[in-house]
Amino acid sequence: MIDIDQIRSDTPAASRLAYLHNAGAALMPTSVVAAMKQHIDLESEIGGYAAADRETDRLEAVYGSVARLLNAAPDEIALVENATVAWQMAFYALPFRKGDRILTAEAEYAANYVAFLQVSKRTGATIDVVPSDASGELDVDALERMIDERVKLIAITWVPTNGGLVNPAAAVGKIARARGIPYLLDACQAVGQMTVDVEAIGCDMLSATGRKFLRGPRGTGFLYVRRALLQRLEPPMIDHFAAPWVSRDEYRLRDDARRFETWENNYAARLGLGAAVDYALEIGIAPIEQRCRMLAGRLRNGLAALPGITIRDLGRAPGAIVSFTLDGHEADAVVASAAAAGITIGASDPSSTRIDAELRALPHVVRASPHYYNTEAEIDRLIAHLADLAAR
Amino acid sequence: MIDIDQIRSDTPAASRLAYLHNAGAALMPTSVVAAMKQHIDLESEIGGYAAADRETDRLEAVYGSVARLLNAAPDEIALVENATVAWQMAFYALPFRKGDRILTAEAEYAANYVAFLQVSKRTGATIDVVPSDASGELDVDALERMIDERVKLIAITWVPTNGGLVNPAAAVGKIARARGIPYLLDACQAVGQMTVDVEAIGCDMLSATGRKFLRGPRGTGFLYVRRALLQRLEPPMIDHFAAPWVSRDEYRLRDDARRFETWENNYAARLGLGAAVDYALEIGIAPIEQRCRMLAGRLRNGLAALPGITIRDLGRAPGAIVSFTLDGHEADAVVASAAAAGITIGASDPSSTRIDAELRALPHVVRASPHYYNTEAEIDRLIAHLADLAAR
Repeated sequence: MIDIDQIRSDTPAASRLAYLHNAGAALMPTSVVAAMKQHIDLESEIGGYAAADRETDRLEAVYGSVARLLNAAPDEIALVENATVAWQMAFYALPFRKGDRILTAEAEYAANYVAFLQVSKRTGATIDVVPSDASGELDVDALERMIDERVKLIAITWVPTNGGLVNPAAAVGKIARARGIPYLLDACQAVGQMTVDVEAIGCDMLSATGRKFLRGPRGTGFLYVRRALLQRLEPPMIDHFAAPWVSRDEYRLRDDARRFETWENNYAARLGLGAAVDYALEIGIAPIEQRCRMLAGRLRNGLAALPGITIRDLGRAPGAIVSFTLDGHEADAVVASAAAAGITIGASDPSSTRIDAELRALPHVVRASPHYYNTEAEIDRLIAHLADLAAR
Repeated sequence: MIDIDQIRSDTPAASRLAYLHNAGAALMPTSVVAAMKQHIDLESEIGGYAAADRETDRLEAVYGSVARLLNAAPDEIALVENATVAWQMAFYALPFRKGDRILTAEAEYAANYVAFLQVSKRTGATIDVVPSDASGELDVDALERMIDERVKLIAITWVPTNGGLVNPAAAVGKIARARGIPYLLDACQAVGQMTVDVEAIGCDMLSATGRKFLRGPRGTGFLYVRRALLQRLEPPMIDHFAAPWVSRDEYRLRDDARRFETWENNYAARLGLGAAVDYALEIGIAPIEQRCRMLAGRLRNGLAALPGITIRDLGRAPGAIVSFTLDGHEADAVVASAAAAGITIGASDPSSTRIDAELRALPHVVRASPHYYNTEAEIDRLIAHLADLAAR
């Protein structure tokens, strides 16, 4: 059971703003802010190295917290600057040759797709997009039919950036494991919003960010790599932390997932990430997921009743990202008008998810993403605001 | 003229600690701490995206500040997570083939050397170490003689991590430019300590960190790439910020050095970096360099008079890193004993600069690195402490 009063008092801005932009960057709880500021103070009091030394245990515990969040082991976790770096360190570590195939989904995120294109240009690998089913989810049967011995990677975004779609990550994992194909899952919009269990999903690699539904700091991210795969992957770039220089002509890669890290880090941000994960685990991911879905469902129901609004979400059981357009109003104008009314929402650009956007001829869409710290009243304020706008 | 009282009042810990560990991580001035904490507060008040939007001008100005520091243009600067990432994004962008040669120096930093080894393994390029002259500096004549058409990169560390050596960066640049060879300079320990002018040096790429002599935050770094080279370099990894996804099968690399960045960043740390650069520029790099050399010289003179101390610095005009050993005392024990007396210094491990360390049979060395905010009295305290230790 979520103690909404406590949570909102841990989130001071919630009393001033209806903050429904958690798919962009969520509001951090006070424990995250305090963890960062305290570490910055410590660094300024005793120096950056001594501060990291003094906080060794808490810094080490961040790996344990992230591992618990994902049902992984701490040595399968790398902490990096952002989700893109996490994803890149895994993706660019994979070897591809001419004729190899990369399978992805229609709503794949732009950051990942341009990397596919670069590697395709470099190696001659091809990118094949698995079609969606009638609901808009990745079509698992089509994926199964597309697999042959040339498929060297399945890489999809679990919860795309441009709407409520939740792709069938675990069904994909079942196929990937049965066929022995590496499976890289972009879980940026999933972590902190819903249960993420790498064993249940069956992914080999998973990347995520701190700043979205996890409510962590900007400039934080992490990578999970399954132990069995880990030691076969040489990172695309290394330093002496990833790979100690053991003799003049030899380096030795670390045994754990930290081979994907570099030596120097922003420790304040790491401690903030750890505090964010601990805060979510303390509340419980299951109640968080339940409340997110309840609030997003309330918003969709309210919007469905408004004239001129088209909900753009795909999938059988959409998550906490609610995407829509309003006839006669550009997405950015809707966002600005809500902002003026104290309601923070965002928009998603077609170029963020170009293939899906082109297939559906999507314009910019408005994106409202509630979280467990929001209230029904805030959802209703947004609905009322949009009703007012629609009526103009 | 440096206003030492003002500077020390901007550095509160200076009144409690003799902080001589600026080659590790310097003490941040209050303006750096304030810039970070204020931005974190803003993020918690209005959300991470709105905070970055509101600070667009100040965030943009960080590029200008770094460019001024280096005598470069803002579009030649990329801001990244740390100096290693900066160096890697440049180095791994360069194409190498079997038989190509990479020239480096004896005291090259471990992070860079393991990357050379990885690329050598991948491509068949060879790594050739330019010998040092009698003073311990990279031997410019030897470099000149080693150059042939197979040399595809000169990559050296300007100020190595393990002592006072200042390599002849500009003389190397003259050769590199005359022969049309790309020149990557690791300036981690140079920025903030001495004048860094990419035009005077003639380097094509330069990497540096925020946390050392620049007095910026941990987890910050930057890369300079000369405009003429920039547009011929495809980053080793890209996202949709570096390379917008312009049509289904096409990305277009940014024209500026931000092609080496990723979309998501720690904006608080960036603002801290900007404040650090502005603080240094306000004081003036020339007086900073002068005072650093004066304090380091005073320390070397004091140490030279002590029995049992061997100064390990190389080069004709050593900088602000003073390295030494004390007979009968392990480096870590010297560091711990100084710490107990309120004096912060560090140590350097032979594996950080393996080739130089093996050539000179160096053990762990003690590393004391004063900065302009230190006083003669603090230097003398360290000398007295070591005299006491030596006498035991």
